[in-house]
Amino acid sequence: MDNKIYYAGIIIIGNEILSGKTQDLNIKFLAYELNELGIRTAEVSVIPDIEETIVNKVREFSSKYDYVFTTGGLGPTHDDITASSMAAAFDCKIVLNAEAEQWIRKQYTTDELNSDRMRMAYMPEKAELIHNPVTLAPGFRIENVYVMAGVPSIARGMFSSFKSHLVGGDKILNCYIHTYLTEGQFASDLAAIQSKHQNTEIGSYPFIHNKKLGTTLVVRSIDYKAIDLTRKDIEDMIKDKGGDIVELNDENLL
Amino acid sequence: MDNKIYYAGIIIIGNEILSGKTQDLNIKFLAYELNELGIRTAEVSVIPDIEETIVNKVREFSSKYDYVFTTGGLGPTHDDITASSMAAAFDCKIVLNAEAEQWIRKQYTTDELNSDRMRMAYMPEKAELIHNPVTLAPGFRIENVYVMAGVPSIARGMFSSFKSHLVGGDKILNCYIHTYLTEGQFASDLAAIQSKHQNTEIGSYPFIHNKKLGTTLVVRSIDYKAIDLTRKDIEDMIKDKGGDIVELNDENLL
Repeated sequence: MDNKIYYAGIIIIGNEILSGKTQDLNIKFLAYELNELGIRTAEVSVIPDIEETIVNKVREFSSKYDYVFTTGGLGPTHDDITASSMAAAFDCKIVLNAEAEQWIRKQYTTDELNSDRMRMAYMPEKAELIHNPVTLAPGFRIENVYVMAGVPSIARGMFSSFKSHLVGGDKILNCYIHTYLTEGQFASDLAAIQSKHQNTEIGSYPFIHNKKLGTTLVVRSIDYKAIDLTRKDIEDMIKDKGGDIVELNDENLL
Repeated sequence: MDNKIYYAGIIIIGNEILSGKTQDLNIKFLAYELNELGIRTAEVSVIPDIEETIVNKVREFSSKYDYVFTTGGLGPTHDDITASSMAAAFDCKIVLNAEAEQWIRKQYTTDELNSDRMRMAYMPEKAELIHNPVTLAPGFRIENVYVMAGVPSIARGMFSSFKSHLVGGDKILNCYIHTYLTEGQFASDLAAIQSKHQNTEIGSYPFIHNKKLGTTLVVRSIDYKAIDLTRKDIEDMIKDKGGDIVELNDENLL
């Protein structure tokens, strides 16, 4: 059995995120999907559309992690510098990709097919095309770096087109327990439970729901039985403290 | 007139973001508020609750940027390691902060005031308290690093309590123009407009709205007149290409 732990780094390329204009929706999606595949997101970096910054971050992440996923900066406009930056990061030329060219020619009539649109078919040499089922610019893979568009629906489409090729390790399972006890009521007891169950990772996250403070406890492990034993100890602790375990929709706990 | 450009780095500390469990809502809020204050977010990093990782990232950002803002990992549980990690990053001890102690004593009755709760009053030596108007653990500032809670409503409350003390430079103004033209229809012309208006930064972002592809053009500059001239050229270009300028709520353009 392969016990290797697979790690990913995510790079969000986009001035629109850094200016506070746009709410990022790609980090959560990618991190969740990767977790499902047994790949742990070790780090996320949001950087501007500056070639030197992109080159350095891609090189750093590509050597540190098994997989790197980037979003943003594809497309035909002057601020779309991801493809040329990736070529620079891997010391290779940017060339017309024959498969991308064919694919783009199919999208447009001869009248529509201008040089701007054809620019989307240029990729780093040796890059492999990532299909874009939504339309617009294709993505590509170069070594362990998967380069996707920034528009969330397109990033999702591209991810779907290659996710079956990603190799991960044991999937990390999560168990969530919600209570209206607050962290200060049980922190030492929880620390003792964590010490007892070394093969799980217990996270504790305060929330405010209907103006009431509470806590979500998350037990994470690749071992389902270990999660179950830890969960039981946590539930007993909550009852001992006079608390209740409540059912809450996770999406409300902000 | 002070022409210094102020840069910030944001560090999101949280396994819950990296596991895909939780949608981050602090990046956009902080980046937007900082932009309003004339502080540009240069980089965002999302990292796990691991002391060495926190220490390295805080040291790197603290020396690279004018301001650093962190969220997450305060509180009394075993996985709340931000305060001790900050002390390690700045080579100082973690001590009982008198102001925090006083503040926490006010929150609880003698019965409620256990050692777990008092743990929230421990901060790096020389750290200055950041008040938490929502309750729970206080934040703190150490040198140019502002350490806040991860729960979005608490992070917002803490930010409000110190934002008037932040010094920024010229505010960057943004102008948004939406059209159902797609990038491939005008990329070269837009590049020419960007070359003509060097003191503005033009961003181009595809969107899908009601299943129709379109583009949001963003003109950014500290010079309102420059934005206005650039905007006029972009609007003329859109009309020349047979496109319309449309009013769209930015929030829909995902």
